Amino acid sequence: MKSEEFKNSAGLVEKKYFTFAEPPNEMLLENGENLGPVTLAYETLGQLNEDKTNAILICHALTGDAHVAGYYSENDLKPGWWDTLVGPGKGIDTNRYFVICSNILGGCMGSTGPSSENPKTGKPYGLDFPVVTVRDMVMAQKELIDSFGIKKLKCLVGGSLGGMQVLKWAQSFPEMVGGAAVLASTLRHSALAIAFNEVARQSIIADPNWNNGHYYDDKKPAQGLSVARMIGHITYLSDEAMRQKFGRRLQDKKDFSFEFDGDFQVESYLHYQGAKFVDRFDANSLLYITKAADYFDLTKYDRHEESLITLKNAGTKFLIISYTSDWLYPTYQSRGIVKVLKRNGLDVSFCEIEADCGHDAFLLKNERLTSIMTGFLSGGYDNPERGL
Amino acid sequence: MKSEEFKNSAGLVEKKYFTFAEPPNEMLLENGENLGPVTLAYETLGQLNEDKTNAILICHALTGDAHVAGYYSENDLKPGWWDTLVGPGKGIDTNRYFVICSNILGGCMGSTGPSSENPKTGKPYGLDFPVVTVRDMVMAQKELIDSFGIKKLKCLVGGSLGGMQVLKWAQSFPEMVGGAAVLASTLRHSALAIAFNEVARQSIIADPNWNNGHYYDDKKPAQGLSVARMIGHITYLSDEAMRQKFGRRLQDKKDFSFEFDGDFQVESYLHYQGAKFVDRFDANSLLYITKAADYFDLTKYDRHEESLITLKNAGTKFLIISYTSDWLYPTYQSRGIVKVLKRNGLDVSFCEIEADCGHDAFLLKNERLTSIMTGFLSGGYDNPERGL
Repeated sequence: MKSEEFKNSAGLVEKKYFTFAEPPNEMLLENGENLGPVTLAYETLGQLNEDKTNAILICHALTGDAHVAGYYSENDLKPGWWDTLVGPGKGIDTNRYFVICSNILGGCMGSTGPSSENPKTGKPYGLDFPVVTVRDMVMAQKELIDSFGIKKLKCLVGGSLGGMQVLKWAQSFPEMVGGAAVLASTLRHSALAIAFNEVARQSIIADPNWNNGHYYDDKKPAQGLSVARMIGHITYLSDEAMRQKFGRRLQDKKDFSFEFDGDFQVESYLHYQGAKFVDRFDANSLLYITKAADYFDLTKYDRHEESLITLKNAGTKFLIISYTSDWLYPTYQSRGIVKVLKRNGLDVSFCEIEADCGHDAFLLKNERLTSIMTGFLSGGYDNPERGL
Repeated sequence: MKSEEFKNSAGLVEKKYFTFAEPPNEMLLENGENLGPVTLAYETLGQLNEDKTNAILICHALTGDAHVAGYYSENDLKPGWWDTLVGPGKGIDTNRYFVICSNILGGCMGSTGPSSENPKTGKPYGLDFPVVTVRDMVMAQKELIDSFGIKKLKCLVGGSLGGMQVLKWAQSFPEMVGGAAVLASTLRHSALAIAFNEVARQSIIADPNWNNGHYYDDKKPAQGLSVARMIGHITYLSDEAMRQKFGRRLQDKKDFSFEFDGDFQVESYLHYQGAKFVDRFDANSLLYITKAADYFDLTKYDRHEESLITLKNAGTKFLIISYTSDWLYPTYQSRGIVKVLKRNGLDVSFCEIEADCGHDAFLLKNERLTSIMTGFLSGGYDNPERGL
């Protein structure tokens, strides 16, 4: 790694673990089941100030992890997934703020999920792991935040599934949410988004190695998981992004092969993404997390409440951001969030960022996002669409 | 069947077979291989007039067949796939025109394809079937048209992959093409369209029952083919169509199941489409046909010609139609066709039809399409965008 890159990054970080809900004090999930113990893998950047008012919780997307920024060692080749936005002097400035990011419940990057050991059997849960929801993910994060003694978060920030967690936080614990930045997300999964997720799940389930979720001692459902990931990657890009990135260019070929190995660069890209994903991600975890995303509906009746939940006004400032070429959670869905928040009398700013890289845009370096985020966190952000 | 429906249909039709390229006079394919004998399943409607000037060739899309309209018997429950447009007094009026539709080369609905018997082995070809192209499909159709003694087709009509065949006809045999109507199609497959096809292919290939294409004596790769079809169906609809058709409605449930069986109507729809497809379609055939679509590029150098092909002006009238919500072959791609045709000095009319049902729109009953087609065939169609 170049020292320059390291200097501009969030520096060295360390993965830590927080465990709660030890039996018999298990966590009550939205589906009525109990789960415990629960461990969350998390990382922190920057310093928590004395009155504990400078904490920012970052919620990751579908297949992300706690490693939001920085490097694990000076020999580490790759920084965390949002190092472009999070670090000293960046949009989320770790010189000023204490940043926390934890792997979601149901994940496979250190937090309790289907690949974790089931204390009742001593073996991985597999499909005995309960179907968790975005609410359950948030409830687990709340335990982590409480463990720091933080009464109110300066802000929560998340894109995609991370944005759903931010919205759920604002609904469940409004007094704890100073600011809520929701990027490339939605109030609820559309039929199209559910359809893509279901095809990805069916691709895993169709792999005989999946074996009804019992594959931890045997071959992994690698081919099914790979196809599932390819489907995901199509939805993260856009027609325009794919044209610019690949067009109809051939991969290491001068002419068509007239075989089924794959001729085009876009095919090689998908194969590569599929194969890479199999190495790092658990197939069952993808089933659970996509299901949680599909179930998410901020406007739906919550099974643990007596009535339809509205969003309480506890002074939270909201920032909703969409990207022009995102067709998984298009701008009209972000406008839908803005509408609901306004209807609840909340303080909302909205911005649609011009970007041709599809849903993935929120993860990429973007000057506009950096300046909007800096402004939002310092309380100075405003835009013409604020009164939307 | 209600007699009213039958009366309004194209009536009774019969599947016929045309065989050519009997060895040693095999067909030379674009990839340089020879193939023979070749059989095309086809159907006709209406009467060929004495001077053979009223023939219309309809080219079907990816998984279509020769059964374009009418019923096989009076007890038949379902008419051909374009019965809404083709029949007596309809947009393509079988009282006036002689309509021909054949199953494409590489297909599995009666024409020679990978599931056909390989004369060299006496067994199904499987992957020994050569990779055919849209050009090869057109060359085979040309043999069929020649067999009728037809020198010039009144018109060719096709949507999607059918539209590519129509364009290829106009490029290869301009003197034989009086009119060319291209619906919901493209000059070449985009990276996005290739990506979807490749994921569908990988889903089939990942199924162990696929067995490198040798499954005809054994279990079919049903699960892989089913997932492939689900992916297809997502691309045939649209975000808006899915919202209207399914939204977040649950299937036979009052609340979430918290299981992986599928809760939402859109999931049930995809499962149903996947299962239904497995019964009627050959997995290898889907590999070959999607590959042909991916390879299609009207503007590309043709391996059998010495130079880049342009479109010769032989007086062909073109009609290009796109649909507002089609995101597989969006309107900008149809405008791309128009641009190339105009650049070649050809006579083009263009129309974008308002429809919220996605790519599937071209297959559905549409009054506007009917009136445009009637006008185009009678030579009277014109529109403000003609001079585009």
